[in-house]
Amino acid sequence: MLNQQILMQQLQQVRQTGPLVHCMTNDVVVNFTANVLLAIGASPAMVMAREESVPFARIASSLLVNVGTLTPELADSIKAAVIAAHEAGKPWVLDPVAYGVLDFRTRFCDGLLQYRPAVIRGNAAEIAAMGGQKSLSKGTDSLTSSNEVLECARQLARQHQTVVAMTGQTDYVTDGVSTYALDNGHEQLTRITGAGCSLSAMVAAYCAVCETPLLAALAALSHMGIAGELAAGRTRAVGSFAVALLDELDLLAQNGVQQLQCQQV
Amino acid sequence: MLNQQILMQQLQQVRQTGPLVHCMTNDVVVNFTANVLLAIGASPAMVMAREESVPFARIASSLLVNVGTLTPELADSIKAAVIAAHEAGKPWVLDPVAYGVLDFRTRFCDGLLQYRPAVIRGNAAEIAAMGGQKSLSKGTDSLTSSNEVLECARQLARQHQTVVAMTGQTDYVTDGVSTYALDNGHEQLTRITGAGCSLSAMVAAYCAVCETPLLAALAALSHMGIAGELAAGRTRAVGSFAVALLDELDLLAQNGVQQLQCQQV
Amino acid sequence: MLNQQILMQQLQQVRQTGPLVHCMTNDVVVNFTANVLLAIGASPAMVMAREESVPFARIASSLLVNVGTLTPELADSIKAAVIAAHEAGKPWVLDPVAYGVLDFRTRFCDGLLQYRPAVIRGNAAEIAAMGGQKSLSKGTDSLTSSNEVLECARQLARQHQTVVAMTGQTDYVTDGVSTYALDNGHEQLTRITGAGCSLSAMVAAYCAVCETPLLAALAALSHMGIAGELAAGRTRAVGSFAVALLDELDLLAQNGVQQLQCQQV
Repeated sequence: MLNQQILMQQLQQVRQTGPLVHCMTNDVVVNFTANVLLAIGASPAMVMAREESVPFARIASSLLVNVGTLTPELADSIKAAVIAAHEAGKPWVLDPVAYGVLDFRTRFCDGLLQYRPAVIRGNAAEIAAMGGQKSLSKGTDSLTSSNEVLECARQLARQHQTVVAMTGQTDYVTDGVSTYALDNGHEQLTRITGAGCSLSAMVAAYCAVCETPLLAALAALSHMGIAGELAAGRTRAVGSFAVALLDELDLLAQNGVQQLQCQQV
Repeated sequence: MLNQQILMQQLQQVRQTGPLVHCMTNDVVVNFTANVLLAIGASPAMVMAREESVPFARIASSLLVNVGTLTPELADSIKAAVIAAHEAGKPWVLDPVAYGVLDFRTRFCDGLLQYRPAVIRGNAAEIAAMGGQKSLSKGTDSLTSSNEVLECARQLARQHQTVVAMTGQTDYVTDGVSTYALDNGHEQLTRITGAGCSLSAMVAAYCAVCETPLLAALAALSHMGIAGELAAGRTRAVGSFAVALLDELDLLAQNGVQQLQCQQV
Repeated sequence: MLNQQILMQQLQQVRQTGPLVHCMTNDVVVNFTANVLLAIGASPAMVMAREESVPFARIASSLLVNVGTLTPELADSIKAAVIAAHEAGKPWVLDPVAYGVLDFRTRFCDGLLQYRPAVIRGNAAEIAAMGGQKSLSKGTDSLTSSNEVLECARQLARQHQTVVAMTGQTDYVTDGVSTYALDNGHEQLTRITGAGCSLSAMVAAYCAVCETPLLAALAALSHMGIAGELAAGRTRAVGSFAVALLDELDLLAQNGVQQLQCQQV
């Protein structure tokens, strides 16, 4: 069983170590993702071109792959970087945005799974679709309750020997054997663009400093969830919420947290 | 004549319906546009690649086309998506950024007009250039007063059986027969990047829920204009204005408005 | 020796003149850069495509080149625009992001130097690498103290008859003969994405209105540095700092400054 004390200690690690996180992410959230990583004390680098992604994957501490605005050129570059990271033993995180909704990105994600992502981070619809359930996705929003697809997440984790972090009203993290439920977070996180995508980048940052991908996912989701609660508590609408979220991510990385809502299920 | 009550009722529609808005827009404003659409309660999806734009145009409720950072690859993808939307009977909105200043994007916009945009949203210089007047554009800023090109807007609307929404100190919306002047708005909207571009995205969102493109354009411009006034009233400079603008767009979508300044001319 | 009065007068020039700044910059910071330029009163235009970059370089007042997310296509477009700007006598600024870390962008920057940038703006690691010193870069962060590479900056300026603006805890601006140290600024500027990249864009804006590139670099660095101090003084974390930074850039452009910390060394 997870020791809450251990989890809280992880939240200091990123800021103390400053891991270099190689982000190959979508155009919509690339700025916000860089600012989120800087806020928690990581060093982001958005290196996307085929000419640079392989050498950079070898330099970086970990790699984030997000298929939100995939093109054929970017797909080639990502695949090469994933192979380089895999061969170099660097952890990489897959965010399968809108998996199951559009064939091009769905097939591409399928082709990456053989290179063993440390963590797959998605919403319930994406995880359900990856696990072979009929997708209920509407665009990038999840219409499936996390509970309904929890077994699906466990199977996906076991099948690919990875950790699945499935976010929703309650978040779940599972390696297929142990499963944890996290009740931090706030609905406002679904009303700004990039909260999920930048959470995946945080998972990549934590993968570079935590002992296991399971612990990394739990730490990243706790960090984001608690920051979301605090930010929602002191703002009245989405514009100031997004700003406050970055503030709270920063302050939590500096001061630590007491409000963890994480338990094994 | 427009009933103000009807217009005010439209402002509730996007939030209640949550239309899926397919955005093919420029790299500069893609994040802000997504956040604006989320703030008003729409569901944005920035699907740009040639491999995905056609199937997504069929799924989405409406389509936004913005040529601010056009490339040949993106042009191909946009054209295919516009044709798909047109054939599927989905409304699409054209934002002809810097039309008349640069040949490549100007010719591309010309080629799209046969697929009947529901609304063309531009500044006076862009509308004047589209209507065949010598462009007075300097970059993306408009140097022509909206009044001078009002007749030009009417002709453009009639010629392409569309609605033209021309923004400036006073905004005008016309279908070539009826013309409305809107006096909401604030100069600060011209001092942040993406206010015009995201307004066009809002028009696309409203097109998905309003009975007519004319009503959609009036509702979107009123929503943005009033939000701009309120945001300017409680901030002192551009950084906090942009944040407050998102807040006010969100709060107006939740609470409705009383301050409409829209009349037929 | 620089007259502080003259430097303070420059800060009014951008806002009064509104130069059109052609930005060919990276995907991560393109939105923030546009907002920074608008905040100081410049007119930004992010024109990137090969089909448009050459004609636009001739229209614009100055050009910014930033290689942060370079691709082969963008490299072709940038090179053509640089040649067009050079031939038209328009000043251009080079921001050699992560020069020395990745071969592709390093070689590309080398190939541009023959077209005489008005200013090269980088951190100490980038300037050291450009000057031929073994790079100490870790991603985009500088690990070299500015002092250690000051002589390197002077040589680089002399060799390419340019101005080098090297930012760090103390900023240095040199044309190879005269060198100035600027002690404005704040550590928070290193904790948000795009502060350095948008500073380079500000240098391009100032190049369009100042008598010399040296004066332009000093003015831009002073403007950003003082805004950073003021913004840090009234915020507690990185999210609100970035918003406040835009506010202070705007207010300084309107009201002028008194707190210059710039002296010849």
